[in-house]
Amino acid sequence: MIKIVIIGSGNVARHLISAFSESAEAELVQVYSRSEESAAGIPKSIPVTHDLNNLAEADVYIIAVSDDAIAAVSKSLPFRNRLVLHTSGSVSIDALSSNNLNGVFYPLQTFSKNKAVDFRQIPICIESSSPEMYPLIEKLARSISDTVFKIDSQQRNALHVSAVFVNNFTNHLYKIGNDICIEHGIPFEILKPLISETAEKVMVLSPSEAQTGPAKRGDSNTIKKHLEFLSDENQRNIYTLLTQSIQNHGEKL
Amino acid sequence: MIKIVIIGSGNVARHLISAFSESAEAELVQVYSRSEESAAGIPKSIPVTHDLNNLAEADVYIIAVSDDAIAAVSKSLPFRNRLVLHTSGSVSIDALSSNNLNGVFYPLQTFSKNKAVDFRQIPICIESSSPEMYPLIEKLARSISDTVFKIDSQQRNALHVSAVFVNNFTNHLYKIGNDICIEHGIPFEILKPLISETAEKVMVLSPSEAQTGPAKRGDSNTIKKHLEFLSDENQRNIYTLLTQSIQNHGEKL
Repeated sequence: MIKIVIIGSGNVARHLISAFSESAEAELVQVYSRSEESAAGIPKSIPVTHDLNNLAEADVYIIAVSDDAIAAVSKSLPFRNRLVLHTSGSVSIDALSSNNLNGVFYPLQTFSKNKAVDFRQIPICIESSSPEMYPLIEKLARSISDTVFKIDSQQRNALHVSAVFVNNFTNHLYKIGNDICIEHGIPFEILKPLISETAEKVMVLSPSEAQTGPAKRGDSNTIKKHLEFLSDENQRNIYTLLTQSIQNHGEKL
Repeated sequence: MIKIVIIGSGNVARHLISAFSESAEAELVQVYSRSEESAAGIPKSIPVTHDLNNLAEADVYIIAVSDDAIAAVSKSLPFRNRLVLHTSGSVSIDALSSNNLNGVFYPLQTFSKNKAVDFRQIPICIESSSPEMYPLIEKLARSISDTVFKIDSQQRNALHVSAVFVNNFTNHLYKIGNDICIEHGIPFEILKPLISETAEKVMVLSPSEAQTGPAKRGDSNTIKKHLEFLSDENQRNIYTLLTQSIQNHGEKL
């Protein structure tokens, strides 16, 4: 069994806690959370500490805290030469203190407090500062996920930016669609099959093959009608920019 | 049985042909296509004509042609006082010639030639110029779909614009994510679970509740890093505009 300690109690930490609780190859020996309040809801069976100086012995320490706090937390760890990983998509492996052996364990998914996810479907992007520790990190990742990728810090950065486009920005387009529906007394339900199908399409077609719509068709009448229809300047700006980008195939200017 | 003729042989027409072929309450008596070539692939069991003057007798004529052609086709129909529907999201019911009774039969979905869809899951938005014909249009819609909505032309316009945001623009964000992956030697596969989860999330949470990411968190360090990372001006412009919009909650300026 690989003994692990999770440092943090936010969204990512919670999802890791539940994934590792079910892993046959990892044993979650402790969770660190800043305060008693922040530990609320962590299963009673898992020992919790609020003091970094009381961290248990383990094979791997996983820092799952906000990006800004990673460097400080890693510096505060009261031991040396153990394996310490962070879980961030946008923080370099070098942010971790060189007091310990370092690695990254980045699950590429959007985590909400109120929605469970199947961790086995989540790609985990791993990186190790020392080649000798890589197999252990890989074993740990495979114990909770079916898809594990070796991704260096530069690639992880690219992935994180891509994820902002396909997840954060996409969700915001859903919000704009919802806003337009609300404004015209239309239930958002009606858009849901379209949202699902749009996502499902790129599981089997490339995004370029899947592209449809007035911008793709060069249907300037419809584009003009849509822009006249939109009374909100922000919505019009987004419509214009994305329409142009589709017409230029999203290519470098 | 409701006898129907479908006028057109493009994507929407093809999907309607296959949906009505399986309907227990509608009988597809004929399809009109411009030429022999454009009719390729239509099942041999369905009579096809290339001449509008040879249209068969039917209870409903469904014009599924490009938006620009709807008015002209409806004017060319060689009969009067029959029920004629179009299938467009962005064309008013008034575009149909008043020679006949008019309606709209708009399936809100993205149709690709190479990907089958389950028509029963597709919302159909219907409208009728005469209240007496509404029940027939509704019966026809319910014969192929489980979700039928009464939507007037103004609402349909709003829906069509919303659909551009949640479908066409979202797909383009997938393409940008894909482009960034290709540029950095990362398989697009790795983003697919995130794309699926992003869509699934708004089936149970509102888009506002589902929003995450640096813009939502006000994480200006990450935003700055991402903008420095993006070398493409078009990608940077989209990143900036959508980040601002998330920070303003997509609200009217």
